[in-house]
Amino acid sequence: MTDTLKVGVIGAGYWGPNLIRNFNDSPSSDVVAVADLQPQRLAPIQKRYPSIHMTTDHRSILADPKVEAVAIATPISTHRALCEEAFAAGKHVLVEKPLAGTVTDAEAIVAAAKAADRTLMVGHTFVHNPAVGAVRAIIERGELGEIHYIDSQRVNLGLHQFDFNVLWDLGPHDVSITLHWLDQEPRWVQCVGGCFVQDDIEDVAWLTIGFASGAIAHAHLSWLAPGKIRTMTVIGSRKMAMYDDLMPVEKVKIFDQGVERLDPDELRRAYRAGDIHSPRVPMTEALQVEVTRFVESVRTGKPSISDGEAGLRVVRVLEAASRSLCAKGARVELA
Amino acid sequence: MTDTLKVGVIGAGYWGPNLIRNFNDSPSSDVVAVADLQPQRLAPIQKRYPSIHMTTDHRSILADPKVEAVAIATPISTHRALCEEAFAAGKHVLVEKPLAGTVTDAEAIVAAAKAADRTLMVGHTFVHNPAVGAVRAIIERGELGEIHYIDSQRVNLGLHQFDFNVLWDLGPHDVSITLHWLDQEPRWVQCVGGCFVQDDIEDVAWLTIGFASGAIAHAHLSWLAPGKIRTMTVIGSRKMAMYDDLMPVEKVKIFDQGVERLDPDELRRAYRAGDIHSPRVPMTEALQVEVTRFVESVRTGKPSISDGEAGLRVVRVLEAASRSLCAKGARVELA
Amino acid sequence: MTDTLKVGVIGAGYWGPNLIRNFNDSPSSDVVAVADLQPQRLAPIQKRYPSIHMTTDHRSILADPKVEAVAIATPISTHRALCEEAFAAGKHVLVEKPLAGTVTDAEAIVAAAKAADRTLMVGHTFVHNPAVGAVRAIIERGELGEIHYIDSQRVNLGLHQFDFNVLWDLGPHDVSITLHWLDQEPRWVQCVGGCFVQDDIEDVAWLTIGFASGAIAHAHLSWLAPGKIRTMTVIGSRKMAMYDDLMPVEKVKIFDQGVERLDPDELRRAYRAGDIHSPRVPMTEALQVEVTRFVESVRTGKPSISDGEAGLRVVRVLEAASRSLCAKGARVELA
Amino acid sequence: MTDTLKVGVIGAGYWGPNLIRNFNDSPSSDVVAVADLQPQRLAPIQKRYPSIHMTTDHRSILADPKVEAVAIATPISTHRALCEEAFAAGKHVLVEKPLAGTVTDAEAIVAAAKAADRTLMVGHTFVHNPAVGAVRAIIERGELGEIHYIDSQRVNLGLHQFDFNVLWDLGPHDVSITLHWLDQEPRWVQCVGGCFVQDDIEDVAWLTIGFASGAIAHAHLSWLAPGKIRTMTVIGSRKMAMYDDLMPVEKVKIFDQGVERLDPDELRRAYRAGDIHSPRVPMTEALQVEVTRFVESVRTGKPSISDGEAGLRVVRVLEAASRSLCAKGARVELA
Repeated sequence: MTDTLKVGVIGAGYWGPNLIRNFNDSPSSDVVAVADLQPQRLAPIQKRYPSIHMTTDHRSILADPKVEAVAIATPISTHRALCEEAFAAGKHVLVEKPLAGTVTDAEAIVAAAKAADRTLMVGHTFVHNPAVGAVRAIIERGELGEIHYIDSQRVNLGLHQFDFNVLWDLGPHDVSITLHWLDQEPRWVQCVGGCFVQDDIEDVAWLTIGFASGAIAHAHLSWLAPGKIRTMTVIGSRKMAMYDDLMPVEKVKIFDQGVERLDPDELRRAYRAGDIHSPRVPMTEALQVEVTRFVESVRTGKPSISDGEAGLRVVRVLEAASRSLCAKGARVELA
Repeated sequence: MTDTLKVGVIGAGYWGPNLIRNFNDSPSSDVVAVADLQPQRLAPIQKRYPSIHMTTDHRSILADPKVEAVAIATPISTHRALCEEAFAAGKHVLVEKPLAGTVTDAEAIVAAAKAADRTLMVGHTFVHNPAVGAVRAIIERGELGEIHYIDSQRVNLGLHQFDFNVLWDLGPHDVSITLHWLDQEPRWVQCVGGCFVQDDIEDVAWLTIGFASGAIAHAHLSWLAPGKIRTMTVIGSRKMAMYDDLMPVEKVKIFDQGVERLDPDELRRAYRAGDIHSPRVPMTEALQVEVTRFVESVRTGKPSISDGEAGLRVVRVLEAASRSLCAKGARVELA
Repeated sequence: MTDTLKVGVIGAGYWGPNLIRNFNDSPSSDVVAVADLQPQRLAPIQKRYPSIHMTTDHRSILADPKVEAVAIATPISTHRALCEEAFAAGKHVLVEKPLAGTVTDAEAIVAAAKAADRTLMVGHTFVHNPAVGAVRAIIERGELGEIHYIDSQRVNLGLHQFDFNVLWDLGPHDVSITLHWLDQEPRWVQCVGGCFVQDDIEDVAWLTIGFASGAIAHAHLSWLAPGKIRTMTVIGSRKMAMYDDLMPVEKVKIFDQGVERLDPDELRRAYRAGDIHSPRVPMTEALQVEVTRFVESVRTGKPSISDGEAGLRVVRVLEAASRSLCAKGARVELA
Repeated sequence: MTDTLKVGVIGAGYWGPNLIRNFNDSPSSDVVAVADLQPQRLAPIQKRYPSIHMTTDHRSILADPKVEAVAIATPISTHRALCEEAFAAGKHVLVEKPLAGTVTDAEAIVAAAKAADRTLMVGHTFVHNPAVGAVRAIIERGELGEIHYIDSQRVNLGLHQFDFNVLWDLGPHDVSITLHWLDQEPRWVQCVGGCFVQDDIEDVAWLTIGFASGAIAHAHLSWLAPGKIRTMTVIGSRKMAMYDDLMPVEKVKIFDQGVERLDPDELRRAYRAGDIHSPRVPMTEALQVEVTRFVESVRTGKPSISDGEAGLRVVRVLEAASRSLCAKGARVELA
């Protein structure tokens, strides 16, 4: 039997405690140390996990030879430096999404991982969600036919960020899921948005991505909404699918409906509205799947579905979307 | 007591029968004649209303001196000619939305109404919907504060049109409601879409409208969706409102929530999430309100909230959106 | 081609206009006369259907040889006398539910139909609802396994009746649907209720029916509820079904779930929670199906699924439930 | 500043871990020891809380002078003996619901607490739920008027118990909430049910409770249902309230509707259907409130709203309901 993977967690703000809980609960890993610059964040964690080492200096974690891997949940602007330090220290890295705030930084991180021959995984948690995986399988086996478009609603009240906008905060989810589902390169990006609460930081954005096949993905991203919505609708030429992450059951529904025949000459239309089917989806927490796959990737050396390359592709779309946002929504072509 | 208004209905396709039913049921009007080029559309109407005169020639209606007003529910491309004929015959006109397919035609119709000194009303049924009126009243009295943005979902499966796209089919609803609510001129328009079932006819479109105040309205319009959605969310600086036209009750909800305080210096955020209130909205059918207001407008000579000018403003936005659609979503400024 | 069935409608209160509309719209029937004691009820009907004869004396309808069948939508206490008169005049009869207020009266009506050799059908509209039929088919082919229990919610605010209670008003729906689904005789009945708004007239009742197979049906019936609910849940040994009549789509859902294995010795439980399936159900209005089947039954002489016998079975359960209600909920055995 | 309360938890099955987490996270208490007969249940808890003492012998906890209070989450049949032991050892006790399986045992536990002068609290978690508290406040200030009836749906698939039925498993929630809301003594109880999966153990039951004021409470309790439902509807003479525990927001709604006027002489009915209001309810976990109130009760000596007397009242209703169940649903009067 392999020993459990010894993990250090850097950053104990909003997301860090979830990483700690999941790495700790997993039979294949243990958290041995947690670092955060703010001691008051460490206190409640120490109360719950008295045996984990707490520190305000992440370098003590990187210096610890027992620690094989680090999970980084710090502000985006720190990702590159921390990842490079971690790879230099020979650690494997799970870094929160987005991988970086620029393509340049993201490429540097990917290169550092390669140079150190260490696993790099990006915390695109949703691609590890069993419901997202179920939709991917349905698309892959052709059940929906050719994909026409994907419409996504990802809105809630808060949490406003101060250093980056809603596109970089919520957008990584839609972009990573869409790229995972469509499995093809995006060709162009458009983005419009509004800055209503803070100057120069968009709290609402509408993102459109065009693909080579003609498929379009559209996402409504907002920190200003009366309630939380997490729905993605996939329109195919044969069937349609709906993924609602907030449903306790029936997270995924397949609608056997579409256009049967349109005949302008006779002004005729025929639609097919058949059965609706909701496949059983395991209830496993996505983050639990993610940490398990991270350990697997470390152990086997094989890339996961949210490896560095996947994370870099997401950053490319977001950076192009930022340029479109500055250019009043003009279309930005991707290389 | 005034006599009932004698109405002729031109066009007995999808919408015409609704006009016939509502004008007939209203105590202030009677339908005296119905015209359609296709006799097979007239047969079932004749069965239900044996005493109404059916004809395949609308000119016999325009020539009938008993007929004071006509309701036109024919293809958009025929609106201008029919309206001009009707005004020339001295009739008042209720014409289905959109008023016309071009700004030029819409302006000509408005001019013809003015020259004939007759009432022109456009069938923007939703602005006569009691729930839409309730939201307008809430906005007017400042309850929501300054309006940040409006997001609309107006999607369903079908009915595909053969001569115009989803922007011109469903878009008039969102544009007319938004202009009615915000009561200010739009400054710019953007639109992206996709043609998936028919060549060159968009069956999905995402429309964005910018206003002088900085407010933005966004609408997802689609004939390709697994279910029918009719929601409009209004985000204000003080409160938020949701209008869901498909709810049997609670069509309008006011959310007493928003951003209380954001303080980047201390990385602090405070949100207000208070009570949710759903005001009672009368159940009156919007079309019944519309026909009543049309009769009123004819009798008093006063313009209604969906008069020719209102209809023209909608066409200006749609024409600009069409130009944006052709220009790959580039922003089109409005004069 | 057979001529259309000429129908007279007796009673133009709440339900009568629906019968008029459906018999009139059906290609196989025509309404030729409507009777109601209150002339003010006839006026709006006359406006809509100028060619139908209106009368305040139902005897003129029964005396009219053109009239082949009558639809009776009058207070329950009048059903027996009107049915007997109608059969005596040689008419076929569709009478609203419940067939009568006592088993004695119900038996007399059934006997009168038989003596006159005329069709008797009871307006248990819901058994003609395509969704109810879909559930019946699912049960019949054994998909749910053995039926354990049915739980029904049938509540709304109003319409309070003045001469009979909620059990006799809403109960006929649950009893007729349940008997149609289970297709076996009820053995015992229990009913508790409360009279909150009017003395001695229950506005809420909970009805329980036991069947020979061990199956139990329970219904919550109420005129005092914050919203309208129309759900029936069927628990089988293999699967479960839910019928929600208010859903625009997905009226019927089949849940592939149940108890896999219970083992007290090892304190083990295993449940099966599989896919959820919603079969496509035609959108046809139940009352349209009902009038079509009535015409069919008249033309062929074959009984429908809501014939006199079916209506009598419902009255037997309701009368027993009334006795239980008077006896503080004590169980009443059925013969 | 007072020291934190040192708590021992006896029973680490389904519910125990929740008690451990909440006592541990609370600033006013610490878990110092956990006992369970099955060592395999202790292992995962030890992994998460390495500093808590684990034992298979609860007596070592009772013998520990550091331990001031115990939380008991063991099978019902063991409650009396364990509580009596704990009081004899001078500990305060929080015991899971129901307090006991018989009135005799429940009375003995209450007497033991009184004799030892120690705090006894029963884990009726729901009465500590902020939404339940909000409804209680609404009822108390008369907003709903006189309470007519309460209808409750508490159903889900599983977890089947092997030693007691659904009435004793789910029923304590409805009975404790109802008694808390109505604040009056029940007069009679009726219960019917069915044993479909295990012989002699009801997996579905319908419970009716009558009160002195004429109010009625009805609950549908089931381990056999296609989905989880947790709704309670309160019908008052002035307004109605709905409590849906599974809603992420809008857990409580107040409906300003009711019967305005019924006039049988003129066959008139008038209903009031006004606004719907959803008061903001704190999101605090009910169990966190419960453990905080338990510590408070221990520190102040003042009884909580789910003290021994409250727990005993619940057992009286359940025991009477059991007798009704055996007597085929016959009404059982309460002293």
